[in-house]
This record gives sequence, structure tokens and C-alpha cells, in this order.
Amino acid sequence: MDRDGIRRRNVAALLRSVHLSGGMSRAGLARELGLNRSTILALTAELTEAGLIREELPRDSHQQGRPSLVVLPESERIQVLAFDVAVDHLVAARIGLGGVVLDRVVAPRARAGPDLEYVVDVLARLGRQLHRAAPPASICVGAGASYCGMIEPGGGTVRFGPDLGWVDQEFGAELSRALGLGLPVRVGNEAHLGAVAEQRRGAGAGLRNLIYLHGDVGVGGGIIAGGKLLDGETGYGCEVGHIVVNPVDGRPCGCGSRGCLEAEVGERALLDAAGRPADLFGREAVRAVVDDAGRGDPAARDALRRIGDWLGIGVANLINLFNPGMVVFGGMLRDVYPAVAAEVRGRIVSHVLPVARERVRLGVSALGDDATLIGAGELAFAPLLDDPLAVVAAPPGAGQASAGTRGW
Amino acid sequence: MDRDGIRRRNVAALLRSVHLSGGMSRAGLARELGLNRSTILALTAELTEAGLIREELPRDSHQQGRPSLVVLPESERIQVLAFDVAVDHLVAARIGLGGVVLDRVVAPRARAGPDLEYVVDVLARLGRQLHRAAPPASICVGAGASYCGMIEPGGGTVRFGPDLGWVDQEFGAELSRALGLGLPVRVGNEAHLGAVAEQRRGAGAGLRNLIYLHGDVGVGGGIIAGGKLLDGETGYGCEVGHIVVNPVDGRPCGCGSRGCLEAEVGERALLDAAGRPADLFGREAVRAVVDDAGRGDPAARDALRRIGDWLGIGVANLINLFNPGMVVFGGMLRDVYPAVAAEVRGRIVSHVLPVARERVRLGVSALGDDATLIGAGELAFAPLLDDPLAVVAAPPGAGQASAGTRGW
Repeated sequence: MDRDGIRRRNVAALLRSVHLSGGMSRAGLARELGLNRSTILALTAELTEAGLIREELPRDSHQQGRPSLVVLPESERIQVLAFDVAVDHLVAARIGLGGVVLDRVVAPRARAGPDLEYVVDVLARLGRQLHRAAPPASICVGAGASYCGMIEPGGGTVRFGPDLGWVDQEFGAELSRALGLGLPVRVGNEAHLGAVAEQRRGAGAGLRNLIYLHGDVGVGGGIIAGGKLLDGETGYGCEVGHIVVNPVDGRPCGCGSRGCLEAEVGERALLDAAGRPADLFGREAVRAVVDDAGRGDPAARDALRRIGDWLGIGVANLINLFNPGMVVFGGMLRDVYPAVAAEVRGRIVSHVLPVARERVRLGVSALGDDATLIGAGELAFAPLLDDPLAVVAAPPGAGQASAGTRGW
Repeated sequence: MDRDGIRRRNVAALLRSVHLSGGMSRAGLARELGLNRSTILALTAELTEAGLIREELPRDSHQQGRPSLVVLPESERIQVLAFDVAVDHLVAARIGLGGVVLDRVVAPRARAGPDLEYVVDVLARLGRQLHRAAPPASICVGAGASYCGMIEPGGGTVRFGPDLGWVDQEFGAELSRALGLGLPVRVGNEAHLGAVAEQRRGAGAGLRNLIYLHGDVGVGGGIIAGGKLLDGETGYGCEVGHIVVNPVDGRPCGCGSRGCLEAEVGERALLDAAGRPADLFGREAVRAVVDDAGRGDPAARDALRRIGDWLGIGVANLINLFNPGMVVFGGMLRDVYPAVAAEVRGRIVSHVLPVARERVRLGVSALGDDATLIGAGELAFAPLLDDPLAVVAAPPGAGQASAGTRGW
């Protein structure tokens, strides 16, 4: 690597630290990046000049001597658009550098039926609305979208989206076109994005190995292994919802198989087990089962025990394989997990060797329903964080609407 | 990173390429490493001076013009000791830079019983014998051992070894002491080492995502995800043998649980299913079942169908999670897999979404019974490949017998 390559890498590393921390002293950056004070000075000067960061005196410093300046992300100035196709609503948000949600708009969505055109139209309208309302001096450096399905790596095409029945739909390219801002839209699987968000800014901050399970109609999973999102040889790893937990008399799954984790612990499995009518669905119906169980209703309690048992088998297998620091439950599993924690822990104790489970934590998402949206924001920021000066020199909105192909 | 750091990194990268390829032209190295000719020249000069590589004219070049020199590892000069605690024998080998097995000695081992002292005594004797027979000019730069159990990361302590009933045994440190060569002995799980060996030099060469399943008494797994061995937050991931595949009426497992992959597809499961006597065991007994099935014996065929079905469920789940380029079957599964390939593929088709399985290959180990031994050699070479000049300047045999703590 040559001298210019090293400088660009250091610039990127510094901006990434500021983005992830939300603000850090010069001294802290020097420690974290293993660089000396004069190098930090040169890098912050360059990033300040580019309008990506600013430096301030710390609000109240109780230290002796001259306090180290705090380096802050220019969150109001440097922004991305983030989109989320959630199970019953569509969301767009402006997210500032540093991961701050600055503004958001939401539209309801019917559970069954919306096709690509409808979803793209609504999201593009919401996105343009946010873009118009943004301060004049702000720069939109990217766009990202969260979708519940298998996404072609780097391409933005939905290869398979069981929720809406999409197959090979060019979601990213269509949304980019409809937005009309010259911005490529990077698309990620919602559970993958949730995993990244929880590891960077949520319940698992600082862990290098984390599993995020996102429940809604189905169950998706995002796995951070060794600090990176697991993707696999062709980008279609982490299909946690379709690992078989009940091969003997499993419930049929939307994928055509039986006994998949999502078939045994998804919303329908819970509502069926609790004897709820087949036309009832949604987060409120799930919460009602949890509430009824809390009041001692036997059918609701049995239903949760059953779901918790299958969930525990799936989670135990994941811990055996990944030895994660934490398993995070998101989506509707935020409501379900606390009610089934005993079953899940019981299965872990039965099926995982003590050495492999001695330090794993289990808990619900810290970012809640924002996990996937914030993950979409991180995806949108990725090109900037890879090469900050190149992106601000030629922001993507200034003409080049190619789909981003780099990873995180 | 400063100038000296870059030089050291380039030196290490070049030696790694030569080690993994077994020999490569200067031009090929320049391409692979993205460095210019003059940098390659300086790096090869430095490594030649250190006695790690040599340069030769290619044997027969049909190219026009001056042929690019071939850079070869000094395999006869730079060596490691590799040890393997296999299920019925103990092995020691001298392995040369480039991964060449130069010499080996084997001692039989009783299946039940051998304690740490016995295993260490035999291996140390074999190791010293090889060391004495090595050419006078050779340098031993490390030692590595393969063991079937959970190994403390970087420490060489066996936390849990079900095969021999070892718990918290300081295998690496004891073997190092008994060898008396001043060499630390790095210890790895046999299936992890097999995975690394198959990915670097075997059936999965060049893949960044690979799963290696090693069957013997139990079933172990090594998983390469994104080019790296999956280890987890505390180093105890990849417990593939203990994922539950049969939660409903599973066979009891040595780990205390039921329905684990190794309980359903291990040697005992196969022999029991085929109606073989309870005191029969070993690779020959497994081969006899496969041979009998090939001759049409119904009990043997049913046994293999049963084992293949559970193996298929486990493999399908691993493909769903890891989207690997290849699943490699090693140990006794080399004999079993070809006889159960139809059942395994059937389960993959049932349980894995087409997008996630469209490019996966399945096959047996290319390195055979040497996979784990060659993996132990790779573990022993790791410190040299991390910082070649530091290691040859002060070889580990020259006084500092600390346990290596770096990873791969």
C-alpha cells in the first residue's frame, strides 16, 4: 500500500470511529486508532475542511490542563435516506452521520398484496417529502432500504420475498428511479440490517459475535461473526428462519418445507397454538396472547410454552455453532421472548456444552422497531465510510446513479 | 501504519502466498499482491536472505522472452512438527514450508483409556525422533497438535475432550515440556484444523466459505466463513456435533443431551442401526456396513438411509446458515457420505431455499486422514506467516517457550 492509500485508510477509520461513537475526543481517537497526535490533527483538519466533522470544546471538562477537543459528526449536514418495508407500514427517514434519526414519515401498508410498484411509489413519495424538508446546506450521501427477503448481494434486487411474494424484483433500482434524486438505493435483508444496527448501536454494542432474530410473519436472522455480517459464498447465508427444528411432525412452512424455525415460532404458530381464529393476525394479536398468559390463561400459557420450546431448540443450535456474545430478539419476538425466556434457557442448558454457553447473554432489541431502519441507514452510509473524501467530492446525488456494489 | 509496518506486512503476505501455492512466479506474486516488480524484488531478496525462500528458473517455460523466476518455499529447511491424536493412533510429522509432509511416524493407540501423560509421552518420543532425523541445516519454527475436543483459544489447554474424558488438561504446555525442544505447541480442534487444511490445500481450495464435517466416534465440524475459521466470542463456536437434529425421540449423546447430530450419525448410531454387536467399533466396522449395503443387505441399507437422513437435516441447516461453497466430509464420513449422498441431497432440496443452495458442492475430503495433521502444521506455521523475519531472527526453539497466542 502506498502513502496516499494509507492516508485514505486513516481518514476513513477516523470518520468511522466518529460515526459509530457519535463523538469522541482527539485523545480517544488517537488511542483507538493507534495514531499519534499530529496524524490525528492532520486527519481531523481534512475531514473538517470536507464538512464531515467539527471540533468543539467538551461541554464540561473536570480534567486538569487543556481539555482534548471533541470530534463530532456533522449530523445535520451529512445525511442519508433510509427506508423500511415493515410488515404493516412503510417508513422513510433522514438519518444524520452518527446514526441520528433526524426526521421520519410513515404510511400504513396492507399486509397482503402490495406489489413492487405500490411500495416503490409510496416510499419514493415519502423520501422526496423528507428530502424537500431537509436544510438547504445538507447533503444526502446515500440511500438504503430494509426488506424482508433474500437480496442479491450488492445489487438491490429482491431474489425472493415470501412476505409480498416478490421474486427477482429490482427493488433498489426502481426505488432509485422513482426517487429521482440520482441516488442509488442499497437494499439489505431486514434481519441482517437489524443485526448490524444492534451490534453497532444497540443491545450488543461492542460484541464481535451476535445473533439477531427478527420475528414478524416469519422469522429472519442476522448473524455477526468475527465482527462481520455473515453472508456466505454467494451472499445468501443467515437463513435462520428455515433451519429445521422439528423434522418429525413439523408445521408446514411458507417455503414449502416443514418444521422450519419460522413455521414453529412465527406469529401464525403462536396464534394457532393459542386457539385464536385463523383470520386474526398482527402484533396486537401476539401481545394479547402474551397478556392472557400473564393473567394465567391456560391455552395462552401452553401456546407460549410450545413456541418457547421450539425457539429454544433453534437458539441452542445457533449458540452451538456461533458461540455468540449475545442473542437479540427483535420484531414481535421482543414481545414473545420475555414470556418464554425460561423455555429458551432450559433448551440452551440441555443442548449446549457449558464451555460454549458460559458467557452468552439473551435479551430483546435495544433499538426496537427502529433496528431495521437504522440498519438501512448504516448500509447507506457504507460508501461514505469506506472512502469519505471521494464521496463528498462527488456526492452520489450529483449525477452517478449506479447501484453501490461494495459491502459494509 | 508506518513504513516499516507496511514492509513487514508485505513480507508476510508474500511468504504466505508462496507457502499456500507451493511456489509462484514473481509475476504471479505481483498480480496477486497488487505490488509492482521492484517491490516484489526487494521482498524476495529479503526473504531469500532470511533463508525462507529461493528463486529458480521455471523447469520448462514455453513463453517468449525472459521467463519470470519462480519463488519457492525452502521446504527442506523451514519446518514445523505436527501432531495428531487420532481415534486409534498417534501421529507426528515434520512438515516443510509449503505444506509438504517430509516425514512421519505413527504409534497405535488404545481407543479407551489413554491419559494425558501417556499421550504426551508417546507424541514427545515420536517428535524427538523426527527432530533428530531432520537435516542439520533445518530449522523447526513451530509445533502444532490436533485434538478432538474444545481447546482454549491460544492456550493449548483442552477444556473438554469427550473422547478421552479430558477436562482442563494442559495438553499444549505438557507436550511442549516433554518435547524439550523449547518449542511452544499450539493446539487446535481436529475438525477446525481439517477445515483449514481442506480450504487451503484440499477439496475446497480457494473457497471463502466451507464446512468440514469430521466423523469418528463423534462428529466434529470446522466452519470457514468469509475466509476465516469461525470461532465465536470466546473461541468455542463450530460445535456442529451437538446441534440438535432429532429433538423428539433422539438418541442419548455423550454430552448428556439427546438427538445431537453426532448421536444420530456417529459410528455408534450407524452400527446400532445396522444391528451390529455393541462391542464392535472402528473404521473397519463402519466400512463393513457400507460394503454390506452395497451388496444389498437390507439391514445395512436401512441403517445408512436412517443415518443419511439425519445427516441431511444437519447439513441442510448448515447450508441455510452458512451458504457455503462446499461441504466436505472427512474422517469416517469419507466412507459413509458416498453411500448416503441421495438422502443428504434429498434433505437439502426439501429444507434449503433454491437461492441459498444453487452453488453448493458436496464431497469427501481430498486430504483424507492427513487433513487434521496438515491443519496442525498450518497452525504451527501461523506465527512465522504473521511475521516471518521476527520468527527466523529468533526461532522459538532458541529459548522462548511461551504458548503462542496469535490466531491464524
